[in-house]
Amino acid sequence: MTQELRTEPSLATTYFGDRLADAVERKRSQLVVGLDPQVDLLPIELRGDVHLGREHAAEAFGRFCRGVIDAVAPYVVAVKPQSAFFEELGADGVRALEDVCAYARQAGLLVILDAKRGDIGSTSRAYASAFLEGTAEPSVRDRGPGEGVGGNREVPPGGARPPLADALTVNPYLGRDAIEPMLAACKREGAGIFCVVKTSNAGSVEVQDAILTDGKPLWQHVARLVREWGEDIVGARGLSSVGAVIGATHPRAVGEARRLLPQSILLLPGVGAQGATPADVARAFTSGPASALVTVSRALIYAFRVDGGEWRAAAGAEAARLRGEVWTVSGW
Amino acid sequence: MTQELRTEPSLATTYFGDRLADAVERKRSQLVVGLDPQVDLLPIELRGDVHLGREHAAEAFGRFCRGVIDAVAPYVVAVKPQSAFFEELGADGVRALEDVCAYARQAGLLVILDAKRGDIGSTSRAYASAFLEGTAEPSVRDRGPGEGVGGNREVPPGGARPPLADALTVNPYLGRDAIEPMLAACKREGAGIFCVVKTSNAGSVEVQDAILTDGKPLWQHVARLVREWGEDIVGARGLSSVGAVIGATHPRAVGEARRLLPQSILLLPGVGAQGATPADVARAFTSGPASALVTVSRALIYAFRVDGGEWRAAAGAEAARLRGEVWTVSGW
Repeated sequence: MTQELRTEPSLATTYFGDRLADAVERKRSQLVVGLDPQVDLLPIELRGDVHLGREHAAEAFGRFCRGVIDAVAPYVVAVKPQSAFFEELGADGVRALEDVCAYARQAGLLVILDAKRGDIGSTSRAYASAFLEGTAEPSVRDRGPGEGVGGNREVPPGGARPPLADALTVNPYLGRDAIEPMLAACKREGAGIFCVVKTSNAGSVEVQDAILTDGKPLWQHVARLVREWGEDIVGARGLSSVGAVIGATHPRAVGEARRLLPQSILLLPGVGAQGATPADVARAFTSGPASALVTVSRALIYAFRVDGGEWRAAAGAEAARLRGEVWTVSGW
Repeated sequence: MTQELRTEPSLATTYFGDRLADAVERKRSQLVVGLDPQVDLLPIELRGDVHLGREHAAEAFGRFCRGVIDAVAPYVVAVKPQSAFFEELGADGVRALEDVCAYARQAGLLVILDAKRGDIGSTSRAYASAFLEGTAEPSVRDRGPGEGVGGNREVPPGGARPPLADALTVNPYLGRDAIEPMLAACKREGAGIFCVVKTSNAGSVEVQDAILTDGKPLWQHVARLVREWGEDIVGARGLSSVGAVIGATHPRAVGEARRLLPQSILLLPGVGAQGATPADVARAFTSGPASALVTVSRALIYAFRVDGGEWRAAAGAEAARLRGEVWTVSGW
């Protein structure tokens, strides 16, 4: 596998866990900023034309996200755009998402696309291609033998595209079939995935806490599957490319997930607007400084609404503060 | 609720189950065609420019889907576009998806968008807005009090947009929080949802068949949740707006799902390319002629690759044949 990757110098040549570990140690940060643009929460100065239609709102989303990226880049290792807010604006929103992802990568940040996709077969392959694979022409790769159109497999005039994102959140309900094409992208292109295991919402109990015959909740069974899925995609730093989303609002679950998933990177939402504190997630970091990431979205990008001041400066200050707080509780 | 709906004559005024029942009885069809466009499976005549880039591939997807819609419209009640294949082409693909959905609705077909979304809070609201709500300006609706920007709530110059789709597939892993905004769209706008319960893939056993303390598989617990979520959104014809996706590849599960979900419309993929036959799903129809829908995708839209002949004619013939076969086994 390593040899195969080395033959593609234009793509990522190292596993996701190693890329993340480098970034975490270089920046001394385990903070991820969630990009959740919403029209009615934007700074006044960006709202001017949004009532004229979706393309104007999408333009405002782009300006807002780029401004946040500029402000927080020194303090965070990754951005986590929430796909839904861009999709709400249709094709214009998706164009803005593409631009924002490219901008973040140019700023030296990893991009974790929060889209929680999960489907099967060729559909799952399409999602892997859409989000995690840099490719010349995404629709003509990885079909079965004999299905291809030979003449279309070359690089188009525009040249190759990089992947939209470095990592993707995925949903486990459909089983390994839904994850398999993403695992291939993890191996081939250095991508990462974060599987939803135990979410931060109160209603997560309805399905995720259903008790199995071993007396344990379903989410712990899913955690064991995540461990299996990722156990042969572990980088030199000991971190698997298959991580898990664990709501920081359930501190005991964070500790249990760490025990069940010793090599997975835990992505921890829920700090800030949802009520969890950095201290609630301290135990997530016992597998290394890059073994967990704290994601903060609204409380950071809309900090100006609470703290006042210029919106970029407020976001930057909040990122700097949280970066330090998380680093301290992580114990590294 | 009925009164509230009547005050919005430009939007749907009847529950999804009633709209579907009308269409099923009028067309004597319980067939849904899945729109799964893939570049390397398209008819040769549409592939000419696809190697020039995504916008050309998206244009080809649009031409292909419109041709299929024209051919099958007399024989099917709905189209089910698979979002992933459009998303694979980025913003260009999403624009094509928007065009295809509008075209299908103009052809008198219901649109069931297969996107299997599932997230929480404001993210879930954004997905409901993106796919199920016809609105003036989607991003400024349904925020909490005090969060809005009053001046932006009016209809923009372009006027109101209809919803992208009539119904959406959703994922239950995050619990009712992930479904709540969609339920609101079901009540307010006559939308429908189909919750993934037991999928057609072999790997569905990994999570969906985990055995709970009552000795039953998880998917039956999820089916009971689906019943609860939909029990107060039942139309005059006795069908709930909250349906379930049950793989036709598991005939016994189809019967069990029918028993657990007497008022839900069962969406049944897996006939054709995945190996199930119409006879495998006969028992799904015992709650009425519109109480189940058989979705056929590749075996129908790419029928020309097996049967030869002009691609539109082949799709139309296959739709006509399957329509009759399903209607017969349904016993209505």
